[in-house]
Amino acid sequence: MFRRYLPILDWGRGYDRGMLTSDLLAALIVTIMLIPQSLAYAMLVGLPPVMGLYASILPLIAYAIFGTSRTLAVGPVAVVSLLTATAAGAVAAPGTPEYLAASVTLALLSGLILLAMGVFRLGFVANLLSHPVISGFITASGILIATGQLGHILGVTAGGQTMIEMVAALLRALPQTNVATLAIGGTATAFLFWARSGLRPALLRLGVAPGAAALLARTGPVLVVAASILAVIAFDLTALGVRTVGEVPRGLPQLGLPRLDPASWGRLLPAAFLIAVIGFVESVSVAQTLAAKRRQSIRPDQELIGLGTANLAAALSGGYPVTGGFARSVVNFDAGAETPAAGAFTALGIALAALFLTPLLFFMPTAVLAATIIVAVLGLIDLGAIRRCWRFSRFDFAALAGTILITLGGGVEAGILTGVALSVLLHLWQTSRPHVAEIGQIPGTQHFRNILRHDVTCAPEVLSLRIDESLYFANARAIENVVQEAVAGRPELRHVVLNCAAVNGIDGSALESLELIMHRLSDAGIKLHLSEVKGPVMERLSRSTFLRHLTGRVFLSHHEALATLAPETTCACDGAERREIDAGQVYPAHERRRSG
Amino acid sequence: MFRRYLPILDWGRGYDRGMLTSDLLAALIVTIMLIPQSLAYAMLVGLPPVMGLYASILPLIAYAIFGTSRTLAVGPVAVVSLLTATAAGAVAAPGTPEYLAASVTLALLSGLILLAMGVFRLGFVANLLSHPVISGFITASGILIATGQLGHILGVTAGGQTMIEMVAALLRALPQTNVATLAIGGTATAFLFWARSGLRPALLRLGVAPGAAALLARTGPVLVVAASILAVIAFDLTALGVRTVGEVPRGLPQLGLPRLDPASWGRLLPAAFLIAVIGFVESVSVAQTLAAKRRQSIRPDQELIGLGTANLAAALSGGYPVTGGFARSVVNFDAGAETPAAGAFTALGIALAALFLTPLLFFMPTAVLAATIIVAVLGLIDLGAIRRCWRFSRFDFAALAGTILITLGGGVEAGILTGVALSVLLHLWQTSRPHVAEIGQIPGTQHFRNILRHDVTCAPEVLSLRIDESLYFANARAIENVVQEAVAGRPELRHVVLNCAAVNGIDGSALESLELIMHRLSDAGIKLHLSEVKGPVMERLSRSTFLRHLTGRVFLSHHEALATLAPETTCACDGAERREIDAGQVYPAHERRRSG
Repeated sequence: MFRRYLPILDWGRGYDRGMLTSDLLAALIVTIMLIPQSLAYAMLVGLPPVMGLYASILPLIAYAIFGTSRTLAVGPVAVVSLLTATAAGAVAAPGTPEYLAASVTLALLSGLILLAMGVFRLGFVANLLSHPVISGFITASGILIATGQLGHILGVTAGGQTMIEMVAALLRALPQTNVATLAIGGTATAFLFWARSGLRPALLRLGVAPGAAALLARTGPVLVVAASILAVIAFDLTALGVRTVGEVPRGLPQLGLPRLDPASWGRLLPAAFLIAVIGFVESVSVAQTLAAKRRQSIRPDQELIGLGTANLAAALSGGYPVTGGFARSVVNFDAGAETPAAGAFTALGIALAALFLTPLLFFMPTAVLAATIIVAVLGLIDLGAIRRCWRFSRFDFAALAGTILITLGGGVEAGILTGVALSVLLHLWQTSRPHVAEIGQIPGTQHFRNILRHDVTCAPEVLSLRIDESLYFANARAIENVVQEAVAGRPELRHVVLNCAAVNGIDGSALESLELIMHRLSDAGIKLHLSEVKGPVMERLSRSTFLRHLTGRVFLSHHEALATLAPETTCACDGAERREIDAGQVYPAHERRRSG
Repeated sequence: MFRRYLPILDWGRGYDRGMLTSDLLAALIVTIMLIPQSLAYAMLVGLPPVMGLYASILPLIAYAIFGTSRTLAVGPVAVVSLLTATAAGAVAAPGTPEYLAASVTLALLSGLILLAMGVFRLGFVANLLSHPVISGFITASGILIATGQLGHILGVTAGGQTMIEMVAALLRALPQTNVATLAIGGTATAFLFWARSGLRPALLRLGVAPGAAALLARTGPVLVVAASILAVIAFDLTALGVRTVGEVPRGLPQLGLPRLDPASWGRLLPAAFLIAVIGFVESVSVAQTLAAKRRQSIRPDQELIGLGTANLAAALSGGYPVTGGFARSVVNFDAGAETPAAGAFTALGIALAALFLTPLLFFMPTAVLAATIIVAVLGLIDLGAIRRCWRFSRFDFAALAGTILITLGGGVEAGILTGVALSVLLHLWQTSRPHVAEIGQIPGTQHFRNILRHDVTCAPEVLSLRIDESLYFANARAIENVVQEAVAGRPELRHVVLNCAAVNGIDGSALESLELIMHRLSDAGIKLHLSEVKGPVMERLSRSTFLRHLTGRVFLSHHEALATLAPETTCACDGAERREIDAGQVYPAHERRRSG
């Protein structure tokens, strides 16, 4: 029981000196990477930069105790920061104490939601976010975040929630551009952009060992930040209008609950839920990818608890919502982290930074932080996914495109909700038109195939239909239509056999439809039979009166059904004379899109 | 093209004298039944009774032209009347001109929505209403309607939207009960209740021919209404406080558009959508059941157009939303209606009633109309469905119970929306935990079965998993977990073969998950293979790069896969040592509900 909820008991007892060395090294590198990131993401939310540091101390320790991934690095990340900014901005003006309290409250609420989901095993909720929706959402968020940071690079103030508002605000503010800020911000962006792919080869050319070069290349942001601080001090750039981070309180965070009136809690709840779910999905996906590389596994339900306690820890120590970050987890993994202790050591590193480095941060230009954000989120934008999606499935493309457009045009919350609704509706629509084929026997075999595709034999008094979908409410009525249409105008018909080999499940609506089909067929003097029903489906059917009242029989194989119902009267099927069967509607053959 | 949208061109050209006689007789009987019904349902909405008659003239003619059912009888029905009352009550106070205009506007809007759904073939939307949700909604509506009419029986005024409000209002008003009203209302209710099952046997005992007895038994409401009118006149019951219908304008409806400010249109739109969809579902279900009895078929998309024009006709002639009614369609069918012309003749009958019978209606007691409503809706309440649902599936039961409770406690719109959301979520949840079995070969055969259920042989370097569900976003991640968990801790593994015989479809999320699974397995030195992939799934996969990058192969049969990958090294599987595979999470075996 304890070990179930405290994974630290598992890995803790085998902890040895070798692991300690590996974890300490990894922690050092992640710390160096995390300092500018956590400051930058706090700025992205519109919070004092120190809150980014606060969000990178206790949460990491909580995750080290409760998380199941050995290498996930937790902390502030771009997309969750954007969601936090949007939600807090809806209840208070940025920069006010209420805005700050709202951000901390979001961490508290999303922590509680994650914990509850973990305890009640509701991780399933995350499955509602399909890959195209997540991909579209992250791409759109990346574009929104990068656009939002352009103001810092230009040295102007430009707001806006949607893409149109932001671009309009930027264009209006363009004449006020501060040249010194643009110079330092532009240079930083260009260097960081180059460093993403160019720094490692350059280091290699300078004779650095490959492993060290790979790790050093990740320190690009820290180099830029350090250089920019020196530049600001050396050339007194603040006098030229370059904005800097300014006073950062020194020391460790105070523990305490956020001060926000309970009325606001209710208004923050939906956003906290989104932050919890999106953070969870992102984090689990990273954790699983890394765990697989070492044939380890993670437990998603326990991950909910790990991330939940991390967010509670963030809230109690004046931070804001956190989750597992992709880039820093990969660095942690590559640097050789072996256990979650690496995360705890990183927390120690950040705590030391908060204690001793904050005076240096006074001169850090916000334009350079903006540059680190822009370059980081450009990596999130995946335009190739749009093309791949279009080629693979128009339905997935519709969900992806809808999510991107609504996120850019209507904000992050509208975007994600539209995406979820779209993907659910499109899934229901797709399965609501199940593929149903009239089948006949391939002469000389026991195989049955679509009469439109194969030369098969049929019995005029028996109609064989193969249903290629599980039966549930969204397609139950379609099956009624299919059978009714297939039967209409065939007075010689005496038996309908539904081949259920591809039916994995059946729900109450489908059961009612089957009963209706049976009664309607019975009114017309036709018996309904089933063939090749799977075990679980048969078991489910046996809980109703359907099998008892079935006018026909349940055959183990379709061959057996035909052999019993029409032992002699088989003849060639004339597929050309039959219209194709279409679930839902009956169209003339030439109007149809789908084929059997 | 014309014939597609004008089914009258189909049946009209073969119309003969025999059909005319049948249709006229059926129309006569339906007219007699429809007069009290249409008055009563208008009263149920809180509209002047004459609007019920108006809703039963032009709409019937429109449906006769555009509808595809030969026997459906269109007009005001109980559930749609309740929805109309709720929606109109949300924008205006009952009894005001605005309330009346809102009711007519609802007919206009739902007519337009139905037409649009028909033209764009969106009848699919109705599939979102699962059988349990509809069943629960109709049961709850029946209870709400019956409770709402009790005030009329007691002769008191009692309002309320939810069950609790209505019962509370009734209890408060109980002391004001009018004894004469209660006597006449109670007697009418008792007689009608008895007539449902007792009138036909009684007529048979009196020597009436069986066919005539069955039809005469349907005229119970008209007998009661006629008797009550006579009683009111004879005993001057109005002096005793018995409320009557009062002045009913004589003549035919004026044509024209409802007068309502466009601002209210937007607020009525969601309700109009519900009215359209629920009316459509009810109507199609009745029409299909009746059509099947004569091996006819209906076209759902054209039904949308038929019902859409019927509602437009209702709006243009001062009526309110209509749809196909169950009881009167059965009467129409039983009375021998052969074509939609019977509906047009019924319209003629109602028009004659509006012209000549309205003076008689002045003395009709509202308590008797309430009695006809109460007895009619008691037939809608299906408590057996709740029990059947519970036995068949807890998921369906949850959707049904949720719909009933929310409809009774929170109103009809909240009820139906909760039901839809519940059934969609439960479906997603159910399919999000697909059944996955590790399979092995039954010695001496080419069959593969669950290793936990059968004595089978496996190869230690090959893991065979059979997935019993189509793969889509709600279960994509579960499959990732399943594979990761199944692979963890088996260092001898070299191949994973996914048996896809039961996979009917695959979407973009599942594709991404398959790619992730492949990469993760590849990182661990394991190849991923597929077997028994269906044609449409293979075709879909070939639109992506997945098959090109697949580390393993696609085998036609699972036997071929094993024969290729592990030609010699098979040994007995020890199923007892393996935990069962569970999609989504990994629990110890004793905690599990599902079995392989």
